[in-house]
Order: sequence, then C-alpha cells, then structure tokens
Amino acid sequence: MPQLRLTKHHGLGNDFLVYLDPDRRVPLTAELARALCERHTGVGADGLIRLGPAEAGLAASMELRNADGGRAEISGNGIRCAGQALVVAGVVPPGEMVVATAAGERRLDVGPTDGSGLAHVTADMGRPQVLGDAPEWEKGDVKSAARVEVGNPHLVLLVADAGAVDVPARGSSAEASVPGGVNVEFVTPGPGADELTLRTWERGSGETLACGSGSCAAAAAARAWGLVGESVAVRNPGGVLRVAFAEDGSVTLTGPAQLVAVVEVALERPGGATLA
Amino acid sequence: MPQLRLTKHHGLGNDFLVYLDPDRRVPLTAELARALCERHTGVGADGLIRLGPAEAGLAASMELRNADGGRAEISGNGIRCAGQALVVAGVVPPGEMVVATAAGERRLDVGPTDGSGLAHVTADMGRPQVLGDAPEWEKGDVKSAARVEVGNPHLVLLVADAGAVDVPARGSSAEASVPGGVNVEFVTPGPGADELTLRTWERGSGETLACGSGSCAAAAAARAWGLVGESVAVRNPGGVLRVAFAEDGSVTLTGPAQLVAVVEVALERPGGATLA
Repeated sequence: MPQLRLTKHHGLGNDFLVYLDPDRRVPLTAELARALCERHTGVGADGLIRLGPAEAGLAASMELRNADGGRAEISGNGIRCAGQALVVAGVVPPGEMVVATAAGERRLDVGPTDGSGLAHVTADMGRPQVLGDAPEWEKGDVKSAARVEVGNPHLVLLVADAGAVDVPARGSSAEASVPGGVNVEFVTPGPGADELTLRTWERGSGETLACGSGSCAAAAAARAWGLVGESVAVRNPGGVLRVAFAEDGSVTLTGPAQLVAVVEVALERPGGATLA
Repeated sequence: MPQLRLTKHHGLGNDFLVYLDPDRRVPLTAELARALCERHTGVGADGLIRLGPAEAGLAASMELRNADGGRAEISGNGIRCAGQALVVAGVVPPGEMVVATAAGERRLDVGPTDGSGLAHVTADMGRPQVLGDAPEWEKGDVKSAARVEVGNPHLVLLVADAGAVDVPARGSSAEASVPGGVNVEFVTPGPGADELTLRTWERGSGETLACGSGSCAAAAAARAWGLVGESVAVRNPGGVLRVAFAEDGSVTLTGPAQLVAVVEVALERPGGATLA
C-alpha cells in the first residue's frame, strides 16, 4: 500500500506534521490535511506542511493547511518546524536558507537539532508597520494602544499586568469591534530589561500559548513607545520568543522547534480509496 | 539517541499508542505515558500500551496507562488495538491468542489487517452479572432499569429514544447518586431486530463515542428483559460493536481496530534526561 513518511514537530506547543514531496507525488489536499491532523482517528496536529521542489537557490517551497483543511499563508511556528524538517531530512545543512511560501520568500537560520530533538530557528518576519496609536482603547488599565500590521492586523494594548487580564472576555470583545477582526495583544514590560510579558488573543483561534506575529507586533509597539531596545525577549505563556530589529525596521523571530516523532502512514483508506 | 518504535491505533475513535518490549528495556512509566500521549508536544493518544513478554502459551502481557499517567486495568478498545499491534508486528499470526492483563487473561481473535489498516477483533469480555432491577430509576421515559457488573459497575436505563436523551445532564446526575460512581447506559431497542441503540455516560470521562463494557452491559440487560437474542449489534454513536453470548452467559465483543501510523520517537529529553 502507498506509504507517506512525515515528521511531527512543535513550536511552543503549536504542532505540525511535515512531509517532503520532491517529486510532486502527494498533493496537499484538504482531505489529506483533515485525515492526518485529526487527533483521534489520524496522527494529530494543528496543521500539515508539504515541502515541495523550489527554484534554484531556495531550500524548498512550503504549503500549509490547517487541521480543518483550509489553506494558511504562513505560520511563524510552522515555518520554524519546516526549517527543522529540511535539516533533519538532510535536504540542507544547518544554517541559513530561503523557503518559498504563499506569503513570499522567507529567510531562515536553522540551528542543529540536538539529541532531544530541539533546535533554535530564526525566521525573517518582515517589517512590522506601527500604524499609529489607538486612543479609543486607552481607558481602564490600558495605558497605551497601537495598531500594528505584521502581514496580519494586530491591536497591542499596554497594560499594568498582562497576567491578570481576562483575555477571553476582553480579546473577543476587542476582536468583534474591529471590522474583519484583529489579533489582540495584552503586553506588560518586564520582568527584566528588554523583556515583555505577553498574552495573545488570536483572531479565529482564541487565546493561544504563543503567537509569533503577535510577539513581533508587541515588540514593535513597545519599541515605538520607547520601552525596549533592539533585541526583545517576549515571554509568551508557552515560552520565550526573541524579536530582533534590524536597521531597516525589519525583524527576525527566534524560537524553538522540537522534533517529536518520525511517522509513517498508509495513504489507502477503507474501501480502497487513496488519500493521494 | 535511544529510539522507541510504536504503532498508533484506534477503536471507534478511542486511540492508543502501542510498543513491544520483549526484552523489558522500556518500562511503562507515568512520565512516558504523559509525554507520548500529550496531544501537542507528544505524539498524542488516549493511552499508551506496553506489550511485554509473557508465560509460555500467551501472546504477550499487556500494561496500559491513560494519557494522565494513571494505570488502567483493561480497556475493550485498547485490547483490540493491542491484538492488532501483535499481528502487525509479526509476533503472532492472525487468529486466536491469549493476552495477560492486569484484569486477568483475555482471549482474543484478531482478524487480518487490510490495506487500509482495518482489522476486526473479537475479545472475550467475561460474564456480565445482571444484579437485578433498579426500580427507583423507572420513572419518566425510563421503562426499565438494571444494575450490571462487567468488571466495572453499570446502570442500564431502557428509554423510548436514546438519541433524544440529554446524556451529560442525566448521566452525571445518575453517576453522582451512586456511591463510588457508575457508568450509565441509555438504551433503546432497534432499529432492527437484535439491535440496540446506545449512548453511554462513562464514569470519570463523560459521554463517549463508544463503550465496550457498556455495550456488553446493555446487551446483558436487554437479554434479561427478553428484548434481544444471542447476538446483538450495539449501535454506539462512534460505530457498531457486536456482543455475542455463549451458553455459560459469557460474552465476546467484536469491533474494529484501525492501524493509523508507525511512529518512532527519541527517548532523550531536553537536558539529557531519558524517558526510559
């Protein structure tokens, strides 16, 4: 029966199945993503990533579908996992590489994977655009507010204690008040210098353990407010992501990618149909 | 780094990771179960099964821990998955075998696994004890009620339409009213002859897609009430389980086991510790 070999990874608890498809034999269909990502009857993951052939000079082209089968343009955690998968499979050595995504080419710096499966991966996240303050949000415990664009829209709210915020109640309410929705970051400076404590309400997902684009948005707003320098440790509930600013205002995001398992599945399904 | 090879299976959506440990090298610790069963940072499953060496004449000894790390004596879905794992790994050929469990020796009849990963497995479930009617429950839409023991305690309630019952509300209330708790089955005869439609409230788990011991309890009560014959198709929300009575009152339970994936994980953890 046709078999597909994948690796499972996670970045701060956000988990992905990744497969290499250099010969374009296994299209990333919605059905394949739903079947493999299903937690009980499949392998289980938040998303499925296909790494296909790419133009000369690029390591791979990356396609991503979420567990519901829908396409996603990019994921900060997903692209770190994809970079680790390319190195673990021996497609490229550890170091710098460029991956083509639906959101354009992304530069990665993938560290070696240690015996426990852990690697540190830095991804170029482009230039966050701080669109300006949002004074209508500056009330109660919100001392400053800014709208930030990081490929997707963010509302960053500077609060006295992000740990004490009722994120589901306030995040959903803020998301609903912006046409098209918005990701909402509750951020508090500290505990150390150049550190931020962050809790994120992700548009369409609710509160999450860690958000890559949200960490970049929060760091960009905090920098505009003069609260942090060029390299910021953003403490998400699920772990720390480091945001570093280049001179042109673009940022890189560094965080862990954890190899969980090597997985082999049959592509045949009951009744003789195949998934690919 | 030390590696462990496992297979992932499910029985009507209840999923298990299974590994063979013929040389007693990888103890089934609570930590290993929690790490591997965790849905996002591990492989993900409801439980982890170790198949170790057994006395002559037995196929294996089976140990099971749930995702929370706690030991479980037996699981009707788990033992079907374990039987399939033994055949898929080539330890025994398809057919009859005996597996030692914490609840005693259990006889299995494991069918061959087809190209889609599906096998049908029959497990000996012992003799359900219909302890007698429970007239205090016969009110409203409950026409008959019985207490049944299948290694664990059950309260079987015969209702006009199991599909219409508010199982979470009524199941939790019934569980709470019995000292030590109880599994609660809402059962309706049909739609066909010798068929039952079942919804189960599992003690400690809530409503589940399918319950092996609950299917046996419901069939035993329905047989005591004269509603079904010797072979009963029990329609659980997650699929059909077949309960067959032998002359001595013992039952076998037949249902699907689905091979999902072959999985390989590293046993080393960050910091150099190992899981086994």
